Amino acid sequence: MSGTAQIGVTGLAVMGRNLARNFARNGFTVAVHNRTAARTRALVEEFGHEGTFVAAESAQEFVAALERPRRLVIMVKAGEATDAVIEEFAPLLDEGDVIIDGGNAHFADTRRREKELRERGIHFVGVGISGGEEGALHGPSIMPGGSAESYASLGPLLEKIAAKAPDGTPCVTHVGPDGAGHFVKMVHNGIEYADMQLIAEAYHLLRAVAGFSPEQIAETFRTWNTGRLDSYLIEITAEVLAHTDAATGKPFVDVVMDQAEQKGTGRWTVQIALDLGVPVSGIAEAVFARSLSGHAALRDVSRSLPGPQPKPLDANEAGRFADQVEQALYASKIVSYTQGFHQVQAGSDAYDWDVDAGSVAAIWRAGCIIRAAFLDRIRGAYDEQSDLPSLLADKQFADEIGTAQDDWREVVATAARQGVPTPGFSAALAYYDALRAARLPAALTQGQRDFFGAHTYRRTDREGSFHTLWGGDRTEVDAG
Amino acid sequence: MSGTAQIGVTGLAVMGRNLARNFARNGFTVAVHNRTAARTRALVEEFGHEGTFVAAESAQEFVAALERPRRLVIMVKAGEATDAVIEEFAPLLDEGDVIIDGGNAHFADTRRREKELRERGIHFVGVGISGGEEGALHGPSIMPGGSAESYASLGPLLEKIAAKAPDGTPCVTHVGPDGAGHFVKMVHNGIEYADMQLIAEAYHLLRAVAGFSPEQIAETFRTWNTGRLDSYLIEITAEVLAHTDAATGKPFVDVVMDQAEQKGTGRWTVQIALDLGVPVSGIAEAVFARSLSGHAALRDVSRSLPGPQPKPLDANEAGRFADQVEQALYASKIVSYTQGFHQVQAGSDAYDWDVDAGSVAAIWRAGCIIRAAFLDRIRGAYDEQSDLPSLLADKQFADEIGTAQDDWREVVATAARQGVPTPGFSAALAYYDALRAARLPAALTQGQRDFFGAHTYRRTDREGSFHTLWGGDRTEVDAG
Repeated sequence: MSGTAQIGVTGLAVMGRNLARNFARNGFTVAVHNRTAARTRALVEEFGHEGTFVAAESAQEFVAALERPRRLVIMVKAGEATDAVIEEFAPLLDEGDVIIDGGNAHFADTRRREKELRERGIHFVGVGISGGEEGALHGPSIMPGGSAESYASLGPLLEKIAAKAPDGTPCVTHVGPDGAGHFVKMVHNGIEYADMQLIAEAYHLLRAVAGFSPEQIAETFRTWNTGRLDSYLIEITAEVLAHTDAATGKPFVDVVMDQAEQKGTGRWTVQIALDLGVPVSGIAEAVFARSLSGHAALRDVSRSLPGPQPKPLDANEAGRFADQVEQALYASKIVSYTQGFHQVQAGSDAYDWDVDAGSVAAIWRAGCIIRAAFLDRIRGAYDEQSDLPSLLADKQFADEIGTAQDDWREVVATAARQGVPTPGFSAALAYYDALRAARLPAALTQGQRDFFGAHTYRRTDREGSFHTLWGGDRTEVDAG
Repeated sequence: MSGTAQIGVTGLAVMGRNLARNFARNGFTVAVHNRTAARTRALVEEFGHEGTFVAAESAQEFVAALERPRRLVIMVKAGEATDAVIEEFAPLLDEGDVIIDGGNAHFADTRRREKELRERGIHFVGVGISGGEEGALHGPSIMPGGSAESYASLGPLLEKIAAKAPDGTPCVTHVGPDGAGHFVKMVHNGIEYADMQLIAEAYHLLRAVAGFSPEQIAETFRTWNTGRLDSYLIEITAEVLAHTDAATGKPFVDVVMDQAEQKGTGRWTVQIALDLGVPVSGIAEAVFARSLSGHAALRDVSRSLPGPQPKPLDANEAGRFADQVEQALYASKIVSYTQGFHQVQAGSDAYDWDVDAGSVAAIWRAGCIIRAAFLDRIRGAYDEQSDLPSLLADKQFADEIGTAQDDWREVVATAARQGVPTPGFSAALAYYDALRAARLPAALTQGQRDFFGAHTYRRTDREGSFHTLWGGDRTEVDAG
């Protein structure tokens, strides 16, 4: 027996509830279920007028309410809760049914679950959903993995509820098999960390070096938001900086404790990048900056360490400096995305996902936290050359970073001299300069490794591995 | 029945062989065993005159050759091979016997193995051994974990074969329970990566900015090696740089392929630091620099990216610049060790190991790759205050870094302007400046997170968590 609901959502906390409403508002009949039934009833009572909901009190009722093949979305806490819910539902399903995990799962867990369920004839689709509560309701950016067959069944529904890019295309694509969707969502979050860190550094420089007030900086960000930096994060930065704390009358940013928190996906991104051998220094510095900010005791014992106090610039100099900071921010952002897309491609290669980088850029254009005009440019670069080895190999980005680099260098130099920490700007510049170096001192590193550990080295002038008898007469021997 | 050998070594590749010889040379009777017996026979034939070896052909013979409680050292490839060898020997052992794993195991594996064997009444001691082949033979730095009881039995032997610090004390201590030894060895290797990267950057700057030849730079490092940078790595850097390639007559460093390789412990260090929330940006940049250097295709498409070409300095300026680089290198090194010891303490706290940081510094003074005069200073700092919250909280280090910082800033600024990548120097400076900042832009980050994800924030002026209704009238609500 088959029900009438085209999709079901179990787990009705705010993300699940909003996703269910989004499906209903788009004309789908939505089965809804929650461990505690009161929440299910509350959803139907409060939002029943928005569309057609079928409230299910039990797992059996929920499954029975779905048309075949069934599509059920799990919206619970990532980790053991997800496994528990899968184990609750899988035995009730039939071959060809689709379980969709919309939580923030680690892609390795998604790979494991997909494999287990595939062997039981059930499609498992790990879906990255970005955009927070508001996105879930009004249109998120959606990154589904899983089989192509499951996407044929699920895609049309997701395309309806997804955010629409400025050109009208839905921000969803079949990213690739098994864990590809959650992997790409993870890298999205890593890039988000890097973007936020770069913005924080720009703010810090404008405050400490240019001597701008938060309101002036908000105005600066508003202006930047009309140009190539046009993005959601720049927009909300202006909003946050312009906000005045009602209780004290002070700028809001000055009453917030300066200890940043994190939920883990940035950390995962760096850990996985290390496994894949991808340098993601911008994301790493962003994660470290957050953890450093939270080490209150360490900071307390360090505040008296010697260093310069920046001398605020005069108005003319400050305006010029702000322009330089915009260049530094933009150039560093190009590097962050270069590193992030490198990781996407490395993941795709490692797991045979055949991810299309241009499509990933396309579905990040709306709905998600890093949505930006910039992403349409990245999509364009990959459209032009789908096997682009690096974003920096795109002529337009190379030209832009080339134009920005003088100012970028000045900003990094100024920050160093004035004692303002810019780990993100500096790491991005070092990455850029390392990539373009004719020779790197890695040759010395290899020499040292051969000296102390006989790890061997290769030569520039002929094939093979070699070892120098450092402890002996220092002749070179062939090491295979 | 019990044998006469005080210690046994199974796995007689170069590290195991040298360790067995070291025990024998120090007067111990050593049972030796290898999967292929030919290697066992070869060891006894070639080095039998160095001491008393008992060659065992089978696992049973090996175990029977050991006095009780038995102490057997496993020297095989980390990972599954270790588990296989443990499973081969454990059933032959008696309660109170001690299995010692001298490989480069991940500390989490050591924790698992220690727990499993403890339940079977066997002591399992994961031991970090640093110093490579030469160290294993002539005296390594030894970092044993495991139970205090096992150290009582094992310690006297290890103290005999360990390297001796300049003051004569053996470079071995009971680091702490279960995986503490392998954890500390991992951090040692992470610091080694950072040290090597900083040296590579100093070399690169002296070459590209000061315009020195490799031979001149070797001379510079030789001079540095007589001062506060006195260390094994600085010493061998001079050796490598002074070496001429016989085949071409060119400086050796110029014929080595500039693609650095790695074996994984640096990567582990960063991954674990991320789990522990410890900012180890210097180690991370070192790992990334190695992986970046190996991305040949990426570098090939990036060499034409625009950037400055450093203009070599005149001799006077070059000499002055070299002095500044020494300051930058020393200051960055202080930061690397600050980060590394932070990780040691965070690991100790997380796993209840009660590691004594001063003792760790003490046993790194000789035998291992990062051995340096500097480590005696670190030991001194912890001796003076065992709960030192950070190396930068030590007055002497703070004074030194305070003196170095002007030059350090100039070097970072110069590198940025001249297009020489200094990810390590820059990351270290950013860490220093972030720690001493009165306020960090993390407050803005928290504001953004509250804006897009309702993640809440804390205030500087009162307890609690708060959320601003950004999508509404922007009043602040209590969030518990």
